[in-house]
Amino acid sequence: MTTGSIAAEVLAIGDELAQGWNVDTNSAEIARELLAIGARVRRFTVITDERPAIARAIAEAAARSEVVIITGGLGPTDDDLTREGAADALGVELEFVGSSWAAIQDRLRKRGRPVPESNKKQAYRPAGADTIVNENGTAPGFVFSLGRARFFALPGVPREMRAMLRDSVLPEICKLFPNAIKPVRRVLKCFGAAEATIGEVIKPWMAARDADPLVGITVSSAVHTISILSNSAARADAAADAIAASLGKLVFARENASLEEVVARKLISLNLTIACAESCTGGLVASLLTNVPGVSAALLEGFVTYSNEAKTARLGVDPEILRSHGAVSAECAAAMALGASARAGSRVAVATTGIAGPDGGTAAKPVGLVWFAVAFDGRVETHERNYAGLERNFLREIASREALNLLRLAIAR
Amino acid sequence: MTTGSIAAEVLAIGDELAQGWNVDTNSAEIARELLAIGARVRRFTVITDERPAIARAIAEAAARSEVVIITGGLGPTDDDLTREGAADALGVELEFVGSSWAAIQDRLRKRGRPVPESNKKQAYRPAGADTIVNENGTAPGFVFSLGRARFFALPGVPREMRAMLRDSVLPEICKLFPNAIKPVRRVLKCFGAAEATIGEVIKPWMAARDADPLVGITVSSAVHTISILSNSAARADAAADAIAASLGKLVFARENASLEEVVARKLISLNLTIACAESCTGGLVASLLTNVPGVSAALLEGFVTYSNEAKTARLGVDPEILRSHGAVSAECAAAMALGASARAGSRVAVATTGIAGPDGGTAAKPVGLVWFAVAFDGRVETHERNYAGLERNFLREIASREALNLLRLAIAR
Repeated sequence: MTTGSIAAEVLAIGDELAQGWNVDTNSAEIARELLAIGARVRRFTVITDERPAIARAIAEAAARSEVVIITGGLGPTDDDLTREGAADALGVELEFVGSSWAAIQDRLRKRGRPVPESNKKQAYRPAGADTIVNENGTAPGFVFSLGRARFFALPGVPREMRAMLRDSVLPEICKLFPNAIKPVRRVLKCFGAAEATIGEVIKPWMAARDADPLVGITVSSAVHTISILSNSAARADAAADAIAASLGKLVFARENASLEEVVARKLISLNLTIACAESCTGGLVASLLTNVPGVSAALLEGFVTYSNEAKTARLGVDPEILRSHGAVSAECAAAMALGASARAGSRVAVATTGIAGPDGGTAAKPVGLVWFAVAFDGRVETHERNYAGLERNFLREIASREALNLLRLAIAR
Repeated sequence: MTTGSIAAEVLAIGDELAQGWNVDTNSAEIARELLAIGARVRRFTVITDERPAIARAIAEAAARSEVVIITGGLGPTDDDLTREGAADALGVELEFVGSSWAAIQDRLRKRGRPVPESNKKQAYRPAGADTIVNENGTAPGFVFSLGRARFFALPGVPREMRAMLRDSVLPEICKLFPNAIKPVRRVLKCFGAAEATIGEVIKPWMAARDADPLVGITVSSAVHTISILSNSAARADAAADAIAASLGKLVFARENASLEEVVARKLISLNLTIACAESCTGGLVASLLTNVPGVSAALLEGFVTYSNEAKTARLGVDPEILRSHGAVSAECAAAMALGASARAGSRVAVATTGIAGPDGGTAAKPVGLVWFAVAFDGRVETHERNYAGLERNFLREIASREALNLLRLAIAR
């Protein structure tokens, strides 16, 4: 049986997208969310902010799909024309919505901003459409029907789009199609595996186009998200169990949680305190941990010791270690972690020191070399990684996750 | 005259794209490359690997555009159907190309690989099409004409697509349209303005859709990028100058540079040293600065003083300040910046302290309140911002850029 029985498509509107200045990531996110409630996206279209093009694309989609999500073109500037294009496709005028204008003014005033007249444009919607409230921005969305399709117009700002999709759009689609088969979704999150390794493990599930379970995989900052969709909870669980068993310790969550959430929650639940000592990651490990609400119960402080002097003054790293082994060494990483733990008075500490590039590498210590250390109750372990060939910032993104993952494995023991 | 006079579009084919597991980045890259040679992409379409859908999308594009770039669906597996879909749209059969098959076999053998029979599929093309050689993979592309359009079918693998686009496709388009005008691009980057404010300033240039210059705007973490395209360098410069003059200090760069790059380069060029003292941003300011290669010349260290104890122990914040004003106050921010500067021995320091939420707010100090301080040679200035309504992580993203921007303004004086 096919997973995803409702015919859906996505329409992304914006010159900046069509001209290629921004990559449209909304459509892919929407497609994944729709699939989870039984709607299969078969087409995305990205078009410019041109009123006739918008109207035409809406009319085409109305003939093809049952659910159409539109993103973008709801801003306050003259080139935001999704409202106008939708009205043209519907053959109606725009109507002013007083409650939307009040909400826009209220939002801007609360943030101490002036209320430019141009924002008034955002309080209009095609006559007969209903408003979708936007809790995170000034652009309300709207919903209307045309042909066989229900259209949902949302802002292009991912954060705003995401909240409105979750809070308003997906629930309404579920209500409109009560008999749609909602595939069950299981998620496995992994860190530290090569794509080909994960590919081999999930291969048996990827053979057929309309297979059930349908297994998909995405990767971001070396974190793999394996998504398992099935019309049957038992089949989804069996596949998730089998894949998780093959991947072992690589799996850090069986839900849609980030590495920092998993680590912070574990620290809090074990009543452990932590400090971070960072050189090449420059504060990224601490800042990932502080993404998690409530982390102040565990995170005491972070030391960004970029210079050798700071490593010695702040963490007590022996200058002799820096002289004989260098700042990028197991010895220095270990001294940083132990020093951070001692100075902050934390039971756990994690340290990073490496060569992010593009310069600073040598034959013995090439660009991409990073040493990690985790101290736990005065004992310390060190780990070496080589990220040769990765661009500086991508290296730092991955190295900071590697630090969190080593932390996860250390406190799980 | 219109910037980008050749009407172009992109068609990306693949289940993994349409289901949202992979984000299509090829189309945006192709759009930027085409614009640089005078071809304006007005639409991308992403569709599944379904033969009738591919044929239909090709027929639709043939009626709309002069140049169409197709990516994906040229692999050796059963679900790669771009060849078949194109043949259907053309009303022709597939033809076997001996030289392509020889090249595929040769490539696999040279890499010590077996030659699976399934790869033979890749040696077919629609009858009457011409082959585009692929130096980086087994999938040759092909080129054909339908309606008013010239179609170029390329593999979906970005590295293979990119080389074929550059070496074969762009040169052929330039030959086909010898009179196309290649536009120039100017960029302005701004921080600290509301979208509507910037909208007001650029409004005169956004009146006509096919205006020259063509002005576009994108926003990411409260950083606005204004893009100015023109067929004339003089017109592009004039528009950039006028917009920059209206926006004044909001403009932090007239090139595609990030806020952290601008600040780090300025610190380095002025021979200034800096330290960061972060509470609510949790290391993000330091980690943004360390994005910039060579920043070690300026950045001495960062203090992530999440707890009150750390603020006192590490930065020397007087406990009396914490008692009488609280950690989120002008007084505490100033003491943090002065303390960081004194402890690290830096001429400049920046400090952040705020309530990122979702909990911890009070009536007097609501969630979203952030205090900033910049110390420079022992003098300190403080700034208050209210990010009410922003989600925790987004608040931190914006607050860390605000800190960089305040730093930029302080050292520019």
